[in-house]
Amino acid sequence: MFLKNAWYVACTPDEIKDDKPLGRKICGESMVLYRTADGSVTALEDFCPHRGAPLSLGFLRNGTLVCGYHGLEMGCAGKTTGMPGQRVNGFPTIRSFPAIEKYGFIWVWPGDRAEADPAKLHHLQWAEDPAWAHGGGLYHIRCDYRLMIDNLMDLTHETYVHASSIGQKEIDEAAPKTTSVGDEVITSRFMENVMPPPFWRMALRGHGLADDVPVDRWQICRFSPPSHVMIEVGVAHAGKGGYNAPAEGKASSIVVDFITPETESSIWYFWGMARNFRPEDKELTDTIREGQGKIFGEDLELLEQQQRNLEAWPDRALLKLNIDAGGVLSRKVIERLLAEERKSQSDRKVIPLANASEAS
Amino acid sequence: MFLKNAWYVACTPDEIKDDKPLGRKICGESMVLYRTADGSVTALEDFCPHRGAPLSLGFLRNGTLVCGYHGLEMGCAGKTTGMPGQRVNGFPTIRSFPAIEKYGFIWVWPGDRAEADPAKLHHLQWAEDPAWAHGGGLYHIRCDYRLMIDNLMDLTHETYVHASSIGQKEIDEAAPKTTSVGDEVITSRFMENVMPPPFWRMALRGHGLADDVPVDRWQICRFSPPSHVMIEVGVAHAGKGGYNAPAEGKASSIVVDFITPETESSIWYFWGMARNFRPEDKELTDTIREGQGKIFGEDLELLEQQQRNLEAWPDRALLKLNIDAGGVLSRKVIERLLAEERKSQSDRKVIPLANASEAS
Amino acid sequence: MFLKNAWYVACTPDEIKDDKPLGRKICGESMVLYRTADGSVTALEDFCPHRGAPLSLGFLRNGTLVCGYHGLEMGCAGKTTGMPGQRVNGFPTIRSFPAIEKYGFIWVWPGDRAEADPAKLHHLQWAEDPAWAHGGGLYHIRCDYRLMIDNLMDLTHETYVHASSIGQKEIDEAAPKTTSVGDEVITSRFMENVMPPPFWRMALRGHGLADDVPVDRWQICRFSPPSHVMIEVGVAHAGKGGYNAPAEGKASSIVVDFITPETESSIWYFWGMARNFRPEDKELTDTIREGQGKIFGEDLELLEQQQRNLEAWPDRALLKLNIDAGGVLSRKVIERLLAEERKSQSDRKVIPLANASEAS
Repeated sequence: MFLKNAWYVACTPDEIKDDKPLGRKICGESMVLYRTADGSVTALEDFCPHRGAPLSLGFLRNGTLVCGYHGLEMGCAGKTTGMPGQRVNGFPTIRSFPAIEKYGFIWVWPGDRAEADPAKLHHLQWAEDPAWAHGGGLYHIRCDYRLMIDNLMDLTHETYVHASSIGQKEIDEAAPKTTSVGDEVITSRFMENVMPPPFWRMALRGHGLADDVPVDRWQICRFSPPSHVMIEVGVAHAGKGGYNAPAEGKASSIVVDFITPETESSIWYFWGMARNFRPEDKELTDTIREGQGKIFGEDLELLEQQQRNLEAWPDRALLKLNIDAGGVLSRKVIERLLAEERKSQSDRKVIPLANASEAS
Repeated sequence: MFLKNAWYVACTPDEIKDDKPLGRKICGESMVLYRTADGSVTALEDFCPHRGAPLSLGFLRNGTLVCGYHGLEMGCAGKTTGMPGQRVNGFPTIRSFPAIEKYGFIWVWPGDRAEADPAKLHHLQWAEDPAWAHGGGLYHIRCDYRLMIDNLMDLTHETYVHASSIGQKEIDEAAPKTTSVGDEVITSRFMENVMPPPFWRMALRGHGLADDVPVDRWQICRFSPPSHVMIEVGVAHAGKGGYNAPAEGKASSIVVDFITPETESSIWYFWGMARNFRPEDKELTDTIREGQGKIFGEDLELLEQQQRNLEAWPDRALLKLNIDAGGVLSRKVIERLLAEERKSQSDRKVIPLANASEAS
Repeated sequence: MFLKNAWYVACTPDEIKDDKPLGRKICGESMVLYRTADGSVTALEDFCPHRGAPLSLGFLRNGTLVCGYHGLEMGCAGKTTGMPGQRVNGFPTIRSFPAIEKYGFIWVWPGDRAEADPAKLHHLQWAEDPAWAHGGGLYHIRCDYRLMIDNLMDLTHETYVHASSIGQKEIDEAAPKTTSVGDEVITSRFMENVMPPPFWRMALRGHGLADDVPVDRWQICRFSPPSHVMIEVGVAHAGKGGYNAPAEGKASSIVVDFITPETESSIWYFWGMARNFRPEDKELTDTIREGQGKIFGEDLELLEQQQRNLEAWPDRALLKLNIDAGGVLSRKVIERLLAEERKSQSDRKVIPLANASEAS
């Protein structure tokens, strides 16, 4: 169960080529994504109304999507605009999905078009500020999207899954604090006077800071629906103010996670890191991406096997410890919004009483 | 749904080795195919009556099929003829399928044996005439066999799927004409005064004809049940008579397509080309086979993805445009014959009334 | 259908690393196997009670199993013994399976713990006697475990499946004799005055015996539940006493087969050979293992395809010839024990009548 009335990351801009559309299933909807002549992004059902071929196997002719089977030209609203030798007025319309390009991502709304409002897209300050840079990647993982939310909202797993890079035993020892504000869930953990693990030693050196002294370290995970998790992470030399230390005395960044369900049991996982130091240094962006990709790749097998285990033992209840509070509260937010979504759908199906009596 | 009372191509003669049988599923029937001592072809259920091992994992001993597990010797009518240390009279008979070798192919009849008549095999004139040569290959494709019939009965797809070889925009511009005569469906398209695409330029040069002048081009697709499509294709220098030009003034051939269902959603696709020029030139046969194999390979992914799309949207109706008339009429022929096949089966199951009263 | 109240080989000792547990499904039960600090073997459900991750993805810390996701420490009885920052008393217990290490194998009891008695483990004399050596390997095969029992209890297949190593036509000619004693089934075959096939020629040479003279050959297959097959095999120079010839006049060994069901249609097949000559010669052990592995690998495809055939034709009865008597009787033993196992389970669920009347 996932929310359909929400903006999800569908792909990154570089995945849509000028001449070649992209086929991708998002929240159970097979979509074809491409850019029209004016550069704007379109998302349609990946189904040619002529003979059912995937439109994503076609090509773009001056920004018009052409089916690769018999040359049907599809308009960006899902209405066929032409086909060699055919009158196309009566062709059935295929579904189009609201799509926008913003913050360095292509976003789609797989649910009810009437509800799709660009204003509902989260504001990502770091994505618009030239003082920040972002780099990241994409993994396809065969697990329920909520397992990934759990994963990101409980970073005690770093000690075990990422022992050689960002894990350290002091994570286990510092209890997280979880709060919920509206639809947002925040889990934060502060470690004081600990030695930095390898990843953070590297980051300190990158800032010209000593890497062999104790630091204060923080992790502030923020879930927001439908399935985004932003994590403020950083270290400062111990006693210099920690999270609130001046910029030149700390190394910090934001781990950026957009989790897009493909099906009930698979996801497109857009991971990345936003930083506000040396934003122009593309080589640094690449180095960080490579390191982060390796670290995040360590979660893949575990999540996929966890998924298979939960499918094999569907009736077994999982524990909800204090460290799980972030995931548990996030799931509650999702449950509440899902209930609202269902209610909103069923309300619309009810014949208003007033009309009913008029009709009688 | 496919016809079972029909001759299908099971394999090419070279696929049956002297010492090794071939296992292949045809119209849902798992068969073992081999050649007996007198050289004739046999098709049996691929199931050893002893312990159920596939007989196709066995071997041939002087033309007798021997199970590779415990040495059971299977006769070509499905009756066990021997087994070391055993009396085999009481062994259950396995099903045998009528099989004939003709026209350079092995044909089987997966349906009712009583209906199998070699005379029902289509006559293939080019296969018997020494003035003709044939070369071809085999693809396994995961799609309903009717999608391949549609594909071959509507060559407008050449413009898109085979753009760099046989496609040209004039195909789209020349409306096809479709007729139906008995069980045969014919779709023909004539293009006049067009420049030949790369494949045909090569063919013209092969005939010693200029390849840089306009030509008249034709495509005459003939469907016949259960699922054969023969396509007369060719070009002649423009104005010299087109399809009816004298042999020395044109380059022409027959595209030969035998589509054998494996299951409801997969096929064995025997493709090839028959030509009546330089029939003795085996190098040319190879060159054509290679070129054609490459072109026909371009359809594979599209057909498989179309199949998956249709399975995902089972209730969606497809368009039936004029260009689709060939496929649409072919499907109608198949539907009619399927209905006859079903009726013939149910008729046979009815206890005749006369007998019933005699019994009372 | 397989017996659950029985000792099965789970793995060999080398598959359990000091720092890394092993995940394996046995009789439908997903297990994690490892060795505790005292060196004893433990088998638990492969399911972390915290979030359902497979414990087999974790690691061992001084003989304690630690979940690789969040560091839960699992005790060897299935009770959580610790977790960073958590009180674990209330954590649900996961199932533990009786496990013992003996005879060079790790054995588990996937059924009712109350019935698990180490005394029920078969005695394997060759495994404890320093005059014997054993070498073997493991294959994963997608077939019902009973197909492998059939295979091993009817060695006429050697003539066909293993024609180039241990097969010879005289096997077919010597009728086997099958008897059943309690739960054990014995099929024996004696061939007199036959030329040894390649494998046995090699073995004779290894014993310093002439390999180009006629021999008496024997095969004595012993099935015992749940699914073990031990086969005494050997050759002696003809007329020197055969099976009862003095040790220095024959080459003989025991083929050791432990068949552990993974699911209803797949097995872990532990094969090997025990010999009582040159037991200290590890190079010979390796040579025999390599040869036997190659021979036994010849059965894999056949068994997997037989399984697929039987699944495709579920209603077809198989023949039960004299050569099949070993498998047929073995299946009868299994059926009888399965019925007892079912009865024992249902008995335990019945409220005793005496108690019922007391309560009223």
